[in-house]
Amino acid sequence: MSILVVGSVAFDTIATPSGRVNDILGGAATYFALAASYFTEVRMVAVVGEDFSPEHEAVLKKHGVDTRGIERTQGKTFRWGGQYLDNLNEAKTEFTELNVFEKFHPRIPKEYSDTQFLFLANIQPTLQTAVRLEMDGVRLTGSDTMNFWIQRTPKELAETLKLVNVLLINDTETKMLAAEKNLPRAANKVLAMGPSALVVKHGEYGATIFFREGAFGLGSHPFRAPALPIEEVKDPTGAGDSFAGGFMGYIASQGEINLEVLKRALFYGGVMGSFAVERFGTERLQNLSRGEIDARFQLFRELTHLE
Amino acid sequence: MSILVVGSVAFDTIATPSGRVNDILGGAATYFALAASYFTEVRMVAVVGEDFSPEHEAVLKKHGVDTRGIERTQGKTFRWGGQYLDNLNEAKTEFTELNVFEKFHPRIPKEYSDTQFLFLANIQPTLQTAVRLEMDGVRLTGSDTMNFWIQRTPKELAETLKLVNVLLINDTETKMLAAEKNLPRAANKVLAMGPSALVVKHGEYGATIFFREGAFGLGSHPFRAPALPIEEVKDPTGAGDSFAGGFMGYIASQGEINLEVLKRALFYGGVMGSFAVERFGTERLQNLSRGEIDARFQLFRELTHLE
Repeated sequence: MSILVVGSVAFDTIATPSGRVNDILGGAATYFALAASYFTEVRMVAVVGEDFSPEHEAVLKKHGVDTRGIERTQGKTFRWGGQYLDNLNEAKTEFTELNVFEKFHPRIPKEYSDTQFLFLANIQPTLQTAVRLEMDGVRLTGSDTMNFWIQRTPKELAETLKLVNVLLINDTETKMLAAEKNLPRAANKVLAMGPSALVVKHGEYGATIFFREGAFGLGSHPFRAPALPIEEVKDPTGAGDSFAGGFMGYIASQGEINLEVLKRALFYGGVMGSFAVERFGTERLQNLSRGEIDARFQLFRELTHLE
Repeated sequence: MSILVVGSVAFDTIATPSGRVNDILGGAATYFALAASYFTEVRMVAVVGEDFSPEHEAVLKKHGVDTRGIERTQGKTFRWGGQYLDNLNEAKTEFTELNVFEKFHPRIPKEYSDTQFLFLANIQPTLQTAVRLEMDGVRLTGSDTMNFWIQRTPKELAETLKLVNVLLINDTETKMLAAEKNLPRAANKVLAMGPSALVVKHGEYGATIFFREGAFGLGSHPFRAPALPIEEVKDPTGAGDSFAGGFMGYIASQGEINLEVLKRALFYGGVMGSFAVERFGTERLQNLSRGEIDARFQLFRELTHLE
C-alpha cells in the first residue's frame, strides 16, 4: 500500500574521515523515499528550488517514487553542511541555508488523498499537524522530530504527538522530550503524550520499540532489534531517515499491523540504516536490490537468534 | 565444572541518584563469584585485611563459593569510593585506597589445581600472566582489564592477551586498546593480539561477541545479545563483573564450548548484569533464584526473537 512522506529535500555538503562531498542530493524525505521504495509505492511532498534538476528528480523516479507532490519555487533548494570528522555518531552542523524550505507549506496533491500510510519527517510541528489533519483517512502515521522543536515549540509538538501512531526518535531526543534520563521511564512518558508506539534509535546498537499498554492489541513489552556492527561507515547522514523508510515501508507493504510485522519492520529499519552509511549521501540506497536487503535482514536476525 | 576467579575484594562507598552506601562488600571478584555461583562451583583467590569479617565471608560461603584462596593479611581491605550522580553510565571515582591490595600477589591453593575454567578479573597484567601460567591446565581463560593498564602497561598487557581465550571489556576499552574508533575494526585488532573471542559490553545496549576466524571451530560472524531496558537502576557498580560471572559461569556449567553455548552465555551475562544494578552493591546477587534468572533469560530472548 502507498506511503506518503512529507519533509525536506536538500543539497548536502558533508565531510567525514572518508572524504568530502559538495551539494549532493539529500534531505530527510529523499532518504526516506529511497529506503521505503524497496518495499512499497512511495509518494512525496516537499519543496525544491530552481537548482533541482531533472537528473535529481530522475533519482527518485527511477525508484518509482511519485514526485507530483514536489513543489518547485523560485530560489534555491535547502542546503545543509556538516562534518563528522571527530565523531561519526554526531554531525557538527557547519551551515544551514533554508532557502525555499523557509516558506515550505506542504500542499497535498488531490491524487494522494487515498494514501494509507503517512510519514511526517522532521519539520515544524505545526506543519506536521496540518498535514496529518488533512490526511485524516490514513491508517497509520509515523513521525520524526528533533531537539530544536522539542526545546523551541513544545506545545505545538505536543499537539502533533496526539495525532501520531508511531514516533521515531533517538535516545537523546527521547530523554529530552520526556525530561527523564532513564530510557524506559522516558519512553513511557512519551507514550503518554499520544503515540501508540515509540521507536528509539540507538545508532550502532540498533533500536527499541516501546508500546503503550493495549496499543495494537498488544502487551507492553518492548522489542529490540540490534544493528550489525559495520566496518566501513563512510557517511552517517540520513541513517535515521533511511531507518524510518525501511520501518514504515515494510509496514505499508504488509496487509495488517501486528506485533510480528512491527518487529520485522524494526529489523528492516536497521537494515536500511546500515546500508545508507556505507556510501556518501544516497548512493548506496540508489543501488540496492531486495535480495541484498533480505540477505542483510537474515544476518541481523542471526546476529541475536538463539536456537 | 569449577571456575576460579582471581581479583579484588573491596569495601565500596557509593553515591547514586537513588541513595548512598558506605563500606559495603564489593570488588570485581566478589561480584563475579556471586553471579557465577548460580551456574557452577566457584573458587576465589583474593586478598583482604583484618576488617574482612566472618559475616563478609559468609555472604560468599552461602553461595557455595570456595574461599580458601582468600588471603588475610595485616592492614585494611581495598577501599573504593565513587559516585554516579550525573551519569549512571560512568562512575566518578572519589577515592581509591589500595591498602592490602597494593601488595597482592595471588597464591593459588593446591586444592585449586584441578580447576578447569579461569577468570582473571581486572588486576595488573603481570599478575594475570603469572596466574595463567601457573594454571596451565585450564580449558578456558577469560579476562578483564581497564583503561589504566591499557595506557600504563601496554607491553605487559600484550603478554597477558596472548594467554587469554576470551577478553571481556567495554566499547571504550576496546577502541583504546586497538587505537581504532570503529568497533568491528577495533575488535579485529584486539583478536589479532591473542584472544579467540572478544566480548564487548555495551552497557544498557547489551554486548557483542566477536570471534577470531576459525576460533572454536566457528566462523567469524559476531553475535549480539541485547540488554533489557531497566526502569530502576539503583547502582551500576559491579555490572561488568556480574556480566562476566554470568557469562563464564554458564560456559563452565556446560559440557562443551560451542557457538550455541557462547551465545547463551552472552545472554546470561546480560541477565546477571541487569540484576546487579537493581540494588546497591551485591544485594540483588545475594538473593536470586535460578528460576528468576531463567525467567529473565527468556525475557531477553523474546526481546529480539523473530518467529
